[in-house]
Amino acid sequence: MNEKIFRDPVHNYISITEPLIYDLINTKEFQRLRRIKQLATTSYTFHGAEHSRFSHCLGVYHIASRVIDHFEKHYPQDWNQEDSLLAMTAALLHDLGHGAYSHTFEHLFDTDHEAITQDIITNSQTEVNAVLRRVAPDFPDKVASVINHTYPNKQVEQLISSQIDCDRMDYLLRDAYYTGASYGQFDLTRILSVIRPHGNGIAFTINGTHAIEDYLVSRYQMYMQVYFHPASRAMEVLLQNLLKRAKKLYSAQKDYFKRTAPALIPFFENNYELKDYLSLDDGVMNTYFQMWMQADDAILADLANRFINRKLFKSLIITDESQTSLAEMKHLVSAIGYNPDYYTAKHKNFDLPYDIYRPEKENPRTQIELLQKDGSLIELSQESALVKSLTGTVHGDYRFYFPAEMLETDDLFQKEKEIFINYIQNDYLL
Amino acid sequence: MNEKIFRDPVHNYISITEPLIYDLINTKEFQRLRRIKQLATTSYTFHGAEHSRFSHCLGVYHIASRVIDHFEKHYPQDWNQEDSLLAMTAALLHDLGHGAYSHTFEHLFDTDHEAITQDIITNSQTEVNAVLRRVAPDFPDKVASVINHTYPNKQVEQLISSQIDCDRMDYLLRDAYYTGASYGQFDLTRILSVIRPHGNGIAFTINGTHAIEDYLVSRYQMYMQVYFHPASRAMEVLLQNLLKRAKKLYSAQKDYFKRTAPALIPFFENNYELKDYLSLDDGVMNTYFQMWMQADDAILADLANRFINRKLFKSLIITDESQTSLAEMKHLVSAIGYNPDYYTAKHKNFDLPYDIYRPEKENPRTQIELLQKDGSLIELSQESALVKSLTGTVHGDYRFYFPAEMLETDDLFQKEKEIFINYIQNDYLL
Amino acid sequence: MNEKIFRDPVHNYISITEPLIYDLINTKEFQRLRRIKQLATTSYTFHGAEHSRFSHCLGVYHIASRVIDHFEKHYPQDWNQEDSLLAMTAALLHDLGHGAYSHTFEHLFDTDHEAITQDIITNSQTEVNAVLRRVAPDFPDKVASVINHTYPNKQVEQLISSQIDCDRMDYLLRDAYYTGASYGQFDLTRILSVIRPHGNGIAFTINGTHAIEDYLVSRYQMYMQVYFHPASRAMEVLLQNLLKRAKKLYSAQKDYFKRTAPALIPFFENNYELKDYLSLDDGVMNTYFQMWMQADDAILADLANRFINRKLFKSLIITDESQTSLAEMKHLVSAIGYNPDYYTAKHKNFDLPYDIYRPEKENPRTQIELLQKDGSLIELSQESALVKSLTGTVHGDYRFYFPAEMLETDDLFQKEKEIFINYIQNDYLL
Amino acid sequence: MNEKIFRDPVHNYISITEPLIYDLINTKEFQRLRRIKQLATTSYTFHGAEHSRFSHCLGVYHIASRVIDHFEKHYPQDWNQEDSLLAMTAALLHDLGHGAYSHTFEHLFDTDHEAITQDIITNSQTEVNAVLRRVAPDFPDKVASVINHTYPNKQVEQLISSQIDCDRMDYLLRDAYYTGASYGQFDLTRILSVIRPHGNGIAFTINGTHAIEDYLVSRYQMYMQVYFHPASRAMEVLLQNLLKRAKKLYSAQKDYFKRTAPALIPFFENNYELKDYLSLDDGVMNTYFQMWMQADDAILADLANRFINRKLFKSLIITDESQTSLAEMKHLVSAIGYNPDYYTAKHKNFDLPYDIYRPEKENPRTQIELLQKDGSLIELSQESALVKSLTGTVHGDYRFYFPAEMLETDDLFQKEKEIFINYIQNDYLL
Repeated sequence: MNEKIFRDPVHNYISITEPLIYDLINTKEFQRLRRIKQLATTSYTFHGAEHSRFSHCLGVYHIASRVIDHFEKHYPQDWNQEDSLLAMTAALLHDLGHGAYSHTFEHLFDTDHEAITQDIITNSQTEVNAVLRRVAPDFPDKVASVINHTYPNKQVEQLISSQIDCDRMDYLLRDAYYTGASYGQFDLTRILSVIRPHGNGIAFTINGTHAIEDYLVSRYQMYMQVYFHPASRAMEVLLQNLLKRAKKLYSAQKDYFKRTAPALIPFFENNYELKDYLSLDDGVMNTYFQMWMQADDAILADLANRFINRKLFKSLIITDESQTSLAEMKHLVSAIGYNPDYYTAKHKNFDLPYDIYRPEKENPRTQIELLQKDGSLIELSQESALVKSLTGTVHGDYRFYFPAEMLETDDLFQKEKEIFINYIQNDYLL
Repeated sequence: MNEKIFRDPVHNYISITEPLIYDLINTKEFQRLRRIKQLATTSYTFHGAEHSRFSHCLGVYHIASRVIDHFEKHYPQDWNQEDSLLAMTAALLHDLGHGAYSHTFEHLFDTDHEAITQDIITNSQTEVNAVLRRVAPDFPDKVASVINHTYPNKQVEQLISSQIDCDRMDYLLRDAYYTGASYGQFDLTRILSVIRPHGNGIAFTINGTHAIEDYLVSRYQMYMQVYFHPASRAMEVLLQNLLKRAKKLYSAQKDYFKRTAPALIPFFENNYELKDYLSLDDGVMNTYFQMWMQADDAILADLANRFINRKLFKSLIITDESQTSLAEMKHLVSAIGYNPDYYTAKHKNFDLPYDIYRPEKENPRTQIELLQKDGSLIELSQESALVKSLTGTVHGDYRFYFPAEMLETDDLFQKEKEIFINYIQNDYLL
Repeated sequence: MNEKIFRDPVHNYISITEPLIYDLINTKEFQRLRRIKQLATTSYTFHGAEHSRFSHCLGVYHIASRVIDHFEKHYPQDWNQEDSLLAMTAALLHDLGHGAYSHTFEHLFDTDHEAITQDIITNSQTEVNAVLRRVAPDFPDKVASVINHTYPNKQVEQLISSQIDCDRMDYLLRDAYYTGASYGQFDLTRILSVIRPHGNGIAFTINGTHAIEDYLVSRYQMYMQVYFHPASRAMEVLLQNLLKRAKKLYSAQKDYFKRTAPALIPFFENNYELKDYLSLDDGVMNTYFQMWMQADDAILADLANRFINRKLFKSLIITDESQTSLAEMKHLVSAIGYNPDYYTAKHKNFDLPYDIYRPEKENPRTQIELLQKDGSLIELSQESALVKSLTGTVHGDYRFYFPAEMLETDDLFQKEKEIFINYIQNDYLL
Repeated sequence: MNEKIFRDPVHNYISITEPLIYDLINTKEFQRLRRIKQLATTSYTFHGAEHSRFSHCLGVYHIASRVIDHFEKHYPQDWNQEDSLLAMTAALLHDLGHGAYSHTFEHLFDTDHEAITQDIITNSQTEVNAVLRRVAPDFPDKVASVINHTYPNKQVEQLISSQIDCDRMDYLLRDAYYTGASYGQFDLTRILSVIRPHGNGIAFTINGTHAIEDYLVSRYQMYMQVYFHPASRAMEVLLQNLLKRAKKLYSAQKDYFKRTAPALIPFFENNYELKDYLSLDDGVMNTYFQMWMQADDAILADLANRFINRKLFKSLIITDESQTSLAEMKHLVSAIGYNPDYYTAKHKNFDLPYDIYRPEKENPRTQIELLQKDGSLIELSQESALVKSLTGTVHGDYRFYFPAEMLETDDLFQKEKEIFINYIQNDYLL
């Protein structure tokens, strides 16, 4: 095969020389990722971030292939070259099971994108599976085992899924590029020159400490400023309440939903197959929501309209002390005529930026290890004051969402609204 | 109103201080632009270019507001400040009437996005119109007159639509950023510092000549390398043949199409209103195409599948001499079982990078004028050898599209395919 | 005056519209800054960082002028417009007194670049002073008072000199650009949109917290990775020992130094005037060192040669415990024939990245304050976990420098050198 | 040897794995390049462009090593691997003979930097020669033969010196980066992926046409806007007249010049050796000029002062017709008291952006060839309208320089000056 080149704004050029990789990209399951936005509702806040999971997956593949080139060239005795194609394939396919508005959808319909990724890979009905089988009959299972963390070579797993993996490195750079949030930038080239296979995992030469520190700080800042942005979460909350309403109405209005949202029926019925899942994407969902804007049910129609036309809920930070005020807040929302089940929501977003290995935890993390001149390893937070400050502590907030109309006091409900507003100071619920 | 800030990856920050502008952005007609890709099928070639018309329109507004600030500050006597808000509004709204896959759609259904832009602005049923009327009853008509080139102040018109206008400056920078094609970059800041109102038009101080030259060269290169890319046009050709097939089938299968593509019916019937047009977007169209992949009609299903899953046609350049071979090529395509009406196409893409004012032409262009130290004007191509080489000559190519299967000779039709292949040399049809 | 434009790689364009500023740039004292590198010996480690203090000073002026534009436009009642020109002038001139290899030079010859800056501004013999006097007879003194922190309007002072001032913002961006160390980048545009005059100082709107946090983290990383780089300090140590040797030899070899280093004589004599100081620059110093490479004194010649041809000393980190080994290390250096007074050195580099206001300290810092929605102020480290981790603690290291020859064991002194090497582990002195 | 890494702002990281290359960088002749600015007087116009020939030479090496990696990996049968080290060495050393303000200096003292490059390489007294001899006794001569175009393998020569060579590719990118003139950017990565050895030269795969076109346009724009900038040439003209004056005065004032400019004496005497040449650099020259500012000769002192403190001459474009006015212009300059031999100058700057091979010419150029799918070659300008417009035609201008004082009419010489000014229109001499 001739080299295939993809022009990529983040990595400049992505070169494909393996026919397997190129054929995987051309499957319908992989092409489907073009129709799913990488950042779901975030593009409603950062309008530039309209990129798809397709471009992210190519990017993860690209970073993985650069790491593996580096391993093969500089550490041939520490890296098993027979795992190279496997690692690149897993990198390319790791997000294959993501669906439209994944997080919200999973929450409501109890789907699991990681399980679906494995299903697409191992299900003999898919084009992806057919391409993988050409390598070897057990190759699909091997790829799936990397995804579900059971593959014996932990070096491969850590490349795909760890505190500093190819997935995270691509999404930070890519999301920073598309949102325009410069904080997400870090020195990928430097990290790729200090990464190395070591024992049954990955380590980094100690003179790369600052680049890794910078990567972790960038990741933290992207979470705080982009991924946890209150306005994107307002859209997520709207979507959640909208789907909750549809699900509620479904049993009484099956015909209406069969006509306006045919591909959602298996999920309302809680009886879906892989092909049903694969028929959903952002465009299909939004097409349904646009139909629902004309629904007879006023709540369904209004929430659909708010979502499609970006009429955001507002929010406040809830503290431990102010939780007790929530009932009163909902009561006030209700008092002016909004059903609080669909017009309010609580939303938590917390992230643990980095942690050391804690064997007592349920899912202990693999800590980042630095290789010193004398050959010994040292854990990252021992070397970096910044990383130490981010280690083992979660960051984020917990918010209460409500209609923006609660803050516009020039109407009949002025009194209730003023009581409501008195509960607010500096974006906190009192 | 507090200043509203949009984080934009191209212009860094876009600041909105006019309530009118902010309210227009929040209308449903403007929010709809989020669901239409700026570059239609180009993202199938340059996967990074998934940005929407929404972000481009914000960008045009931003450039216009910078130009106008500059005019108000430095040339208060040459620029009529009463036109400032009008110019910014027209900049924001100039692309409002674009629809899903506009060029292909317009060609098949005889719609016109410029006319629709004016309709959205002046039609009393739209939210945009309601917001505009708050300025003055005749404000919608004034905005529309800028779009249709009848507004008396030609300075305003040239900002929105000329050989170097805010629209082009934004799309070149934006498309370059999202495709990753560095050629599209030029020095916007410099151009914005040498632009000035002059007489009944726009001129540029002569020391900005090189920046303008660079802009025109960048534009030329974006056309040659990005906008006219044969692979994107392959998708356009697929789309055109797919919609042509659907239109052909419609009268015999009305029920099928009413069920699978309800929002297209008014267009099949050639009897649509503005609201019908506004209900279409990329996601809606793709949802329909995904339905059609299961159609009984084999051609409709196959073309839908090729479009959704990016199975591209191949192409050759047609020269004046080789036009006579086209009949034979189609014949060969037919001979191996493909209906050439739907499995071949001719596609022309030509652009005139720059031209001087030629009054004898039907739509003469406004030439770019440079202001010299002694106050006299000189036309750009007189000052720049590069521009001179691009003046008055169209660039592009004319291609013949056919199924990639014509080039795979390992089957029954080997003989026909070899004849076909013999007509090809260096991507040219012989 | 016509607008004067400087093309700047960091800020794109720097525009000068004030004749005063343009005339100051054209004085010989300001043009002299072209002949002094911004980062002294750092360009021997980061070869790209060959930029001069001239470009930095222009950059500080540019940032200050943007801040002041913002203040005048948005906070006319909180900012005294009569101080605008003063603040821009002080920004431009704040580093005027820097000399060749300032830090080393000051240490050895007891000069003080801040005092010299004030002297250039107020001394009636300078072109700078003549230009300033054209504004008002007391204008030079006012500018000097901003530099020495006695000007009553603390807003002006904080723009020029505080924990987040125009000087620091320019040098971080500029040094990051020229070294290629991406860590130094931060979001200047964002900071310039949230800065505001407040009371008798400067504050930042709270929604800019992350941009300021990012600035402080960037500053910390530039110190750790660029400014404190051991190799640049090796050059500084060489320079220091070289000048120390020259000073030592001077009284016995006055004629030699008068011939080879005429402009240094007033400093060897400890009897210099402003014009003597201004006659020195990097090129003059290096010209002298190149002469000294042929000196009869072997140590002077050798150190000059090492400096000019970049033969670096090596270094180790000294801990509290390992200080006791220093005598032995020097002894070993001496044992193989190097005079430890000129062939070893200790070098400390520590920085306090940020601190709150601590009135009990000698030079308490002005803390960074954030303005909340309800109008109250909150100190930065209360809002940012990252900043908190950098507050009040110094970072850096303390190193012992010695000839690289100590590590090459293939000669007569193998035994001594092996003892020496045994004191080293992972770049630490044991 | 461990890999050595140089952080480079243009190429990000430059990696050195060959001990030969690293040892060459550490010679005193190569380190000397740190003390010579890449763009001579251009930094007086583009203040950011203070980078040295040292960083450029590293960059050329880096590009060459990337090309050679590509050749070795993809075209092992078309590229002679035995020439790899030679090509990288020649790339690193090709500019070694450049001196302070080379072009002006060569013109006045009849030196030749290419001959000196060869001398440094082959002269047994240099450190560079000693390092090269370690490879093989004839290696210095081989390297020199690449520099002087006599090496038999023309692939090697074209990498170092042709219309698209590693030298030009680095200096365009680097000078664009440091000046801030974005026009110089082009897509290096793309060019490095389409370059290939072909026959006895270099060719480019045809799908890289646009990248090469863009490179040539960028080069043209850098010449027009940066390298030929009238203000930098004003400094060059000042320097030329200053050295001309010194040379004129020398025979009568030998002692004065021996004291103030010792390293220039061999050049005044026209009797210099390599070591004399190597002892000059920008800092040494400027140190001398600063001494001359106090000279008794008024012209020498004044020109030195104008050069050091950037008091530029002004200029006009001379056309074929206006040449006849030059005598009158000089007469007017003389009339107001300036010696026209030292206070005026004519300065031509013309460049031929690209040309095809023209065997009839004295130094015919090697044309750029594109490799088509069928294996045939086609010359670049046949494929690119932009390149065609730049082929075979020189671009630039011819200017007359004079003191800026000629334009300030408020003095005794008002009448002469007004006559002078009447000869000027739009920067042209009439």
